[in-house]
Amino acid sequence: MKTVSENRCFGGVQGVYTHASQSCGVDMTFGLFLPEEAKEGPVPVLWYLSGLTCTHENAMVKAGAQQWATEQGIALCFPDTSPRGEDVADDEAYDLGKGAGFYVNATQSPWAAHYRMWDYVGHELPELIAEGFAVDPDRQAITGHSMGGHGALTLAMGLKGRFRSVSAFSPICHPTQSDWGRKQLTAYLGTDESAWAAHDASLLMREVGFDGDVLIDTGTDDQFWDLLKTGAMAEAMAERRQAGQMRLQRGYDHSYFFVSSFIEEHVAFHAEALWR
Amino acid sequence: MKTVSENRCFGGVQGVYTHASQSCGVDMTFGLFLPEEAKEGPVPVLWYLSGLTCTHENAMVKAGAQQWATEQGIALCFPDTSPRGEDVADDEAYDLGKGAGFYVNATQSPWAAHYRMWDYVGHELPELIAEGFAVDPDRQAITGHSMGGHGALTLAMGLKGRFRSVSAFSPICHPTQSDWGRKQLTAYLGTDESAWAAHDASLLMREVGFDGDVLIDTGTDDQFWDLLKTGAMAEAMAERRQAGQMRLQRGYDHSYFFVSSFIEEHVAFHAEALWR
Repeated sequence: MKTVSENRCFGGVQGVYTHASQSCGVDMTFGLFLPEEAKEGPVPVLWYLSGLTCTHENAMVKAGAQQWATEQGIALCFPDTSPRGEDVADDEAYDLGKGAGFYVNATQSPWAAHYRMWDYVGHELPELIAEGFAVDPDRQAITGHSMGGHGALTLAMGLKGRFRSVSAFSPICHPTQSDWGRKQLTAYLGTDESAWAAHDASLLMREVGFDGDVLIDTGTDDQFWDLLKTGAMAEAMAERRQAGQMRLQRGYDHSYFFVSSFIEEHVAFHAEALWR
Repeated sequence: MKTVSENRCFGGVQGVYTHASQSCGVDMTFGLFLPEEAKEGPVPVLWYLSGLTCTHENAMVKAGAQQWATEQGIALCFPDTSPRGEDVADDEAYDLGKGAGFYVNATQSPWAAHYRMWDYVGHELPELIAEGFAVDPDRQAITGHSMGGHGALTLAMGLKGRFRSVSAFSPICHPTQSDWGRKQLTAYLGTDESAWAAHDASLLMREVGFDGDVLIDTGTDDQFWDLLKTGAMAEAMAERRQAGQMRLQRGYDHSYFFVSSFIEEHVAFHAEALWR
């Protein structure tokens, strides 16, 4: 593992690291914020999965999460959104290929070679940071924005027992029925739609739900509203009687200005579960 | 004036606007955050001047100032750091030309045609926002980072009575004696160093000082420490018995992670002066 940068930040350290990823078969970069408490011993960790076109960096510099992580004494991990490098397959569209891994293990050519973001975020990177940093693997929570909200919800429901809480900002909720989903699931997983179900938060909510609490925020002025299918998730949560909140925030859109406006509440929500 | 974007943010609106600038002779872009209170009537405004290579956007998305501006009920204005456009002179170096206006009115060719950032930030833009938005021109304060800290300090001392308070993050304090200064002042103002004094915060502190309080934060691990000449400013403040604080923050560097870590205290400092 190589240190790209370490900056003092709110009394802790915001680091960026690269490592040779076994899952993805290329070097991957991630951000990790450790609060001051990490000097004394392992702290809980909140994962932040980013959306389309983002890297490890966007949320790290724009979401403003570190101040609240410091207040709550928890670490933040910011993975990249896809494999990177010249050998990695890509597409001209912003919503397929690099920056658009959709948190799945691709089975189709040419994507299968490197696009294994489910394994990377769900297994490899958690093990790596638990070994290399003062992070407690028994206290993990997850959140994300847009495609990253989709990733947070599907990983939380798919990896039973792993996360104590899950939240999402403007998540893609029902990708099997959206243009943010059908195209990518077809490319990465093939045309057999039965393989898609494990990557659709609304379907997973109906099938398995989540043991902890769920918090979802979406803006009423979200410019991608039609693609998110928030209603499908709201219905699924209600039918399952899933403990949690689905909140529609008046006047907010899909930008990081929305994320930063509500990140304090999300971090506090997770901290309550992580420190319980 | 044209609206580039408006995003809901912490209950207020983060806007970006362009307008034909008389001072600079080109279209200029700026960010303006208005808290919810601005719907009821004019609010005080805190200016944030950015550093080398930055645009109006960097601090707007990375400093995390809006949440505290909302809490304090004040507006934030984020000007660009130089004129822009194909007709505007530039240099290959990152620290001269575009992104490096140094908040002066250039008198030398080829810069004199458009590089009039002192007039732009000190006169044109304040008048524009006071006319076009719910901003109170009688309650202004100013801050900035690095080159923008230099701009904040020199404008605050140079425009007597304009600003109620001034602060700076890692400011360039003594440009007439630094490689961050001599090169640019020579290019923009010529070789007669007597013209430079009005743009050196340490010299101005000795000559005129500031009527309100001054707050300066710089990190002890600032990678540009030798260029900032923080000591010259500390000495000048002490000799003048300038009311204010010069703080050296242990372990912090020159990045926005430093700015975001202390922006809450700076906004609160200004709010106290603005609402007095």
